[in-house]
Amino acid sequence: MKAEIITIGDEILIGQIVDTNSAWISQRLNETGITVSSKISIADDRTQIIDTIDTALRGNDLVVVTGGLGPTKDDITKKTLADYFGSKLVRHEPTFEFIRTLMTKRGIAFNELNQAQALVPECCTVLMNHNGTAPGMWFERNGKILVSLPGVPFEMMPLINDEVLPRIREHFSLRSVVHKTAITFGLAESALALKIAPWEDSLPAFLKLAYLPNPSQIRLRLSAYDTDQKMAQEEIDRQFARLEALIPAYVIGYGDDTVASITAELLHRRGATLAVAESCTGGALSSAFTSMPGASEYFLGSVVSYSNSVKEQVLGVHADDLKHYGAVSQQVAEQMAAGVRRITGADYAISTTGIAGPSGGSPEKPVGTVWIGIASAKGVFARKMVFGHLRRQNIERATANAINLLRLVLTDRIETPVQQGLL
Amino acid sequence: MKAEIITIGDEILIGQIVDTNSAWISQRLNETGITVSSKISIADDRTQIIDTIDTALRGNDLVVVTGGLGPTKDDITKKTLADYFGSKLVRHEPTFEFIRTLMTKRGIAFNELNQAQALVPECCTVLMNHNGTAPGMWFERNGKILVSLPGVPFEMMPLINDEVLPRIREHFSLRSVVHKTAITFGLAESALALKIAPWEDSLPAFLKLAYLPNPSQIRLRLSAYDTDQKMAQEEIDRQFARLEALIPAYVIGYGDDTVASITAELLHRRGATLAVAESCTGGALSSAFTSMPGASEYFLGSVVSYSNSVKEQVLGVHADDLKHYGAVSQQVAEQMAAGVRRITGADYAISTTGIAGPSGGSPEKPVGTVWIGIASAKGVFARKMVFGHLRRQNIERATANAINLLRLVLTDRIETPVQQGLL
Repeated sequence: MKAEIITIGDEILIGQIVDTNSAWISQRLNETGITVSSKISIADDRTQIIDTIDTALRGNDLVVVTGGLGPTKDDITKKTLADYFGSKLVRHEPTFEFIRTLMTKRGIAFNELNQAQALVPECCTVLMNHNGTAPGMWFERNGKILVSLPGVPFEMMPLINDEVLPRIREHFSLRSVVHKTAITFGLAESALALKIAPWEDSLPAFLKLAYLPNPSQIRLRLSAYDTDQKMAQEEIDRQFARLEALIPAYVIGYGDDTVASITAELLHRRGATLAVAESCTGGALSSAFTSMPGASEYFLGSVVSYSNSVKEQVLGVHADDLKHYGAVSQQVAEQMAAGVRRITGADYAISTTGIAGPSGGSPEKPVGTVWIGIASAKGVFARKMVFGHLRRQNIERATANAINLLRLVLTDRIETPVQQGLL
Repeated sequence: MKAEIITIGDEILIGQIVDTNSAWISQRLNETGITVSSKISIADDRTQIIDTIDTALRGNDLVVVTGGLGPTKDDITKKTLADYFGSKLVRHEPTFEFIRTLMTKRGIAFNELNQAQALVPECCTVLMNHNGTAPGMWFERNGKILVSLPGVPFEMMPLINDEVLPRIREHFSLRSVVHKTAITFGLAESALALKIAPWEDSLPAFLKLAYLPNPSQIRLRLSAYDTDQKMAQEEIDRQFARLEALIPAYVIGYGDDTVASITAELLHRRGATLAVAESCTGGALSSAFTSMPGASEYFLGSVVSYSNSVKEQVLGVHADDLKHYGAVSQQVAEQMAAGVRRITGADYAISTTGIAGPSGGSPEKPVGTVWIGIASAKGVFARKMVFGHLRRQNIERATANAINLLRLVLTDRIETPVQQGLL
């Protein structure tokens, strides 16, 4: 069961808008057991629309088209579809009445442009759009389906969920699909691939493995199609259990987990609080936690000590250590973590100090050098990491790795060397 | 001069990632005078890759391919391209050495998978990737060009800017194009469109206007194709001068400026320093500044006072005001700004305190309510803003509007009410 998604609109092709619709539609179709063979974005151009639709219908069972249904003259999708299916435009009364009411309520004139929104190709089944003026349309030809939907997300999404997917389940006999995604952190894609090669090679043939690299974590997805769902689910769980046994420190979670959400959950579960002292990450580390709902339950606050004076006066870093070891050093990272933990009274504290770049590097401390400190009741310690030369990337990696270091402490994978002196 | 963009990767087709690359590439090609005829996303599938590339090359002068260049089994773009162009894979020494150094620096084993990244089709021109292990590749056939680039944005973008576009300008005789983009801040698209309608209607026919909405700012691009470049540039400048006169407080800059980069430049120019006290923005406000190179020249630091105790003990907010007015109040916003300015000695300070959501709202203070404070030698004041109900969006908008409030102060568009008492 193959599908193609076609998004229509000049604004997509000149890069004015990022097409988020097709990713969302892909997910929904995928969950329903439909394979999206390709996604294509084209212009509001009659010939291109007809050619693309024709090719898509030849190669797929389902074609989902979004966009080009507005009232202005550059939107030609509906007229083009009517011509393609050799059907004339007729007024859809329920839509006509809906638009009339909508316009009256909004105090907008019910002009001929709005009225034209109620015209639909005679041969299609109308999918009632309760959130806008452009009706969804369901076309059928030789058992194949073409669906045309408005491009506005909050109009398109309910139409997919409430109108399109139920009809698809009725119309096609869909194959079953089972997905599960494991999140790994701390191994580069190549290193991970080597480490898990034996596991990968031993997977049963009916399980498909996909690598889904993220900036800072790599997800591994196992999929099973056309199998007994319960059996497939159990086999996938069994295989991921084997994966965890193979690389215990690197499999951090499943599904939509992130290193931040997992670490937040670990703190939450033990009722522990967190504070942060950031230099090179400049607020990104705090953001990684506070961007998630419920952060206020464990996140007390942070100090972004960009200048040395803030390191000294707010966090209590020793001036002589700053002078002697430099701001990017184990000593300063440890004193920053201990300092923010002291002034906030948090159970755990993370610190970062490094050279994000592009300038500020030296032979001994090149751009990308970052010290990450962790302080807890047990003590304080710091780890050195060296990333690349791109500022944003260094900030992103330092942030993710700082969170992961705390995760390793919270899961007892790292023993905290006791240095009570600092606390 | 027509181009097609092909993004390769199963993760796009199952909707696991939103393809932002192609929108960005479309913008850059568009600015260069190249029309993007279509964008297509396909799977890591040999047959599909070959068919899609073949069709694209027949209908276009330029084909830009991204993705599928990773070191793992499922990434087959490079091998497929080599076969398509009838070329064998050979080692590219500079890339080999670059990867070796990179891996050594990061302490990652230089294994055969990494080494394989240095293999390229013999017939292509290598576009050196200084930000990752997958080299860019430039293929030429019958005057048509195919470019293959890694899908990781921060690897792809420099390759487009520094390697691909210059070569394209050399290879093709592009139609002349003059672009200039004005950045507006503080008006919704519909409100902006209404305000500038007379200006828009009076534009000479050879100038094309495009709205480029961003999360927090709307860019207006004027383009002139196939005209005398000097004349077009002068006319565009003249029209934007008229626009500035029409909405002086809303046009904040041009080109790639952002409200943050403009505000940073204003601080930099007068040698002024900045400190930040954040509650609801939770580090995002600091990040907006520290993510830009050179931040350490004016950014002293910040306090993310998520808990009331940090507001009191670190920033010196009065406990009774917290109790009486609540954390989300004018009084607390002002004391936060004054407090962080005091402890850091910064010339200017910004503060944010609000309800990001999803929970924590009340009838008087609904989710999305944010107080933004500004402190300077002149005094301190706060402004209330109410945004939506989505957490991330509220954080984003509070951040952008807080920066813009400082921009308005620095450009003397807002008089700071003198309240020496707080300083």
